[in-house]
Amino acid sequence: MSSFTFTIDAECPDSWARAGTIQTPHGTIQTPIFMPVGTQASVKSVSPEELHKAGAQIILANTYHLMLRPGSALIAELGGLHSFTHWDGPILTDSGGFQVFSLGHLRKLSEEGAAFKSHLDGSAHTLTPESVMRIEAELGADIILPLDICAAYPCSPQEAKAAMERTHRWAERGLVAKEQYRPEQTLFGIVQGAFEPELRQESARFIGHLPFPGLSIGGLSVGEPKAMMWEMLQFVTPELPRDKPRHLLGVGSPEDLVVSVGLGMDMFDCVLPTRVARHGGLFTRAGRVNIKSARFRAERGPVEEGCDCYTCRNYSAAYLHHLLRAGEYLYYRLGSIHNIRFMLRLAADLRAAIIAGNYCAFRDEFLARYTPASEQVRAEQREKWQAARLR
Amino acid sequence: MSSFTFTIDAECPDSWARAGTIQTPHGTIQTPIFMPVGTQASVKSVSPEELHKAGAQIILANTYHLMLRPGSALIAELGGLHSFTHWDGPILTDSGGFQVFSLGHLRKLSEEGAAFKSHLDGSAHTLTPESVMRIEAELGADIILPLDICAAYPCSPQEAKAAMERTHRWAERGLVAKEQYRPEQTLFGIVQGAFEPELRQESARFIGHLPFPGLSIGGLSVGEPKAMMWEMLQFVTPELPRDKPRHLLGVGSPEDLVVSVGLGMDMFDCVLPTRVARHGGLFTRAGRVNIKSARFRAERGPVEEGCDCYTCRNYSAAYLHHLLRAGEYLYYRLGSIHNIRFMLRLAADLRAAIIAGNYCAFRDEFLARYTPASEQVRAEQREKWQAARLR
Repeated sequence: MSSFTFTIDAECPDSWARAGTIQTPHGTIQTPIFMPVGTQASVKSVSPEELHKAGAQIILANTYHLMLRPGSALIAELGGLHSFTHWDGPILTDSGGFQVFSLGHLRKLSEEGAAFKSHLDGSAHTLTPESVMRIEAELGADIILPLDICAAYPCSPQEAKAAMERTHRWAERGLVAKEQYRPEQTLFGIVQGAFEPELRQESARFIGHLPFPGLSIGGLSVGEPKAMMWEMLQFVTPELPRDKPRHLLGVGSPEDLVVSVGLGMDMFDCVLPTRVARHGGLFTRAGRVNIKSARFRAERGPVEEGCDCYTCRNYSAAYLHHLLRAGEYLYYRLGSIHNIRFMLRLAADLRAAIIAGNYCAFRDEFLARYTPASEQVRAEQREKWQAARLR
Repeated sequence: MSSFTFTIDAECPDSWARAGTIQTPHGTIQTPIFMPVGTQASVKSVSPEELHKAGAQIILANTYHLMLRPGSALIAELGGLHSFTHWDGPILTDSGGFQVFSLGHLRKLSEEGAAFKSHLDGSAHTLTPESVMRIEAELGADIILPLDICAAYPCSPQEAKAAMERTHRWAERGLVAKEQYRPEQTLFGIVQGAFEPELRQESARFIGHLPFPGLSIGGLSVGEPKAMMWEMLQFVTPELPRDKPRHLLGVGSPEDLVVSVGLGMDMFDCVLPTRVARHGGLFTRAGRVNIKSARFRAERGPVEEGCDCYTCRNYSAAYLHHLLRAGEYLYYRLGSIHNIRFMLRLAADLRAAIIAGNYCAFRDEFLARYTPASEQVRAEQREKWQAARLR
């Protein structure tokens, strides 16, 4: 039997924010929580010990990447993801669907599932709601996701509805298929519905009332303006059962975390904090700074005064500036640790604020102080990363 | 005044091997010792804490690279290399000469010094025996080296002699210039003489009797067959004073370490262990293996059974194989830690053998068991690295 439980520790009286505790076979997670992403069974450049020290309580790994390399059967043979990666805390695996749908011309979709060609070697593969359950059982994460369909942004209402309805049918097939695998794994349902308020509500009700112990909200943060994502959450959250944890898939930035918690979200995962770190973007309470900038050349203080991360406690901003300019590997680690710690401290601060009953004040103060990356910078980044996608 | 001392703890009765203890302002070094190289003020991908845990007692940094980026004045302003890098143990800086002479057409040599153009931006710089002392004082290492001339391999006896004689004049100028800088720094002399036995002897006598507290042997491991390097050491060592530590510059591989200790060498530095690690070459007692090889795909054991390094204690060879194939940064760290630990355990084993009086048996056993990289593999590597040189 699964040892998965979710308890609500506190709720904000003026928003939908809540603080909770999730139990999994590999440990406890206190929400709200940010989950660093280890796409290929490694959070890029960071060790498991460093993740623990940065406050990570659960990490995510990508089924799509791992089924292709090194293969889920091999990972099963080697004892599953925990043993393979030496990370002994909770792990969540996605379904691979999102990556397959990003492949565009390389995939073919049917009611049965998605046929696609590997971006690595062109080999042919098929994901079905059933095969995804087998693959995720082999990977052995604590929380797993079913195959779903993430509609493109923008898309027609007809496409949005068709993708949602198939996602619902696949959710039921996933629930049935999971029965034959590992009972200690917990299957979350995925809410879709693109950017159609009625579909979002319908999907939240449908998925929310299937026997999933937790819920992921998919299909957001796919290129739409932030305000549109937040609007969608306002339709979704009221329809969701209160007693299941809510995971906002693929989100996000510090400001996304702060706002979405107030819209009822408990769990977040995103490559953004580690990816922007590798490009020089480091988070501070005042906003994102670029460590490559000449102003850090001789800065003997840390990246962020008062930060308790390994990087800020031991290295000057000038040293990080030098390492990145010199192309030294150590930079990627130090920058990633800082941003991961920033996100996890932010999650812990949000939790403390909710418990103390002042989430809204915390949110407003944070947003007043924090300058997010401009839409233009975000658009440029998206373009660059899109070009590098799945390489 | 310098707190530098060197004590001989044991000598091998059947070879020139000895075990010693060096005191420096930043700590004690037990010899024989391998010094990991942090070219640009970072041992690529490895943190100071990891270096300590792997047994590192002293690391090396490159004056040439650091004077160009971020600049020695800036490092001085930030408190010197120890504070800059967060490595609190002893540091040795080379003189920059070796890199300048590798630049070929980019440099111009005179009695005064070497004028060269930066490989980074083409800017003009000059190194003189005097300016090198200033730059190394700014960097602030515990052990520093004077400007020398490393003759090319092969070269004519005339070129060898001219390079050696200028090295000797520059050594004297370096000694004088150093007087005005930091007394806590220790200046080693550099023996040259290319591959001419008489010149090697002459240089060893000349440099050995100047008031240098330690000696580096330069101009070896520059492309010659290994047997030729060992032959040269047989001419050098008998001419050197017994009571000064001997550093074999830019050497080397596990087998180089084992053999050269018997030829009287105490200290070794080389990028080879970390560089080959990044390309997949990992050391074991049986020889170097390539972790990319298909035989490690499903290997649940560590890279080397019984190895006490962080990598081998926590990760399977299959995981390392996956990380390298997937291009994951974490691999570079894990591979480098293993090879550094291998070199440092080997140095510690050599020391124990010398103290126990069985160095020669240890050496013979090691060499019988250890298959070095073939001359062909070494030649191919050299070519590839030469092409990437100073990039």
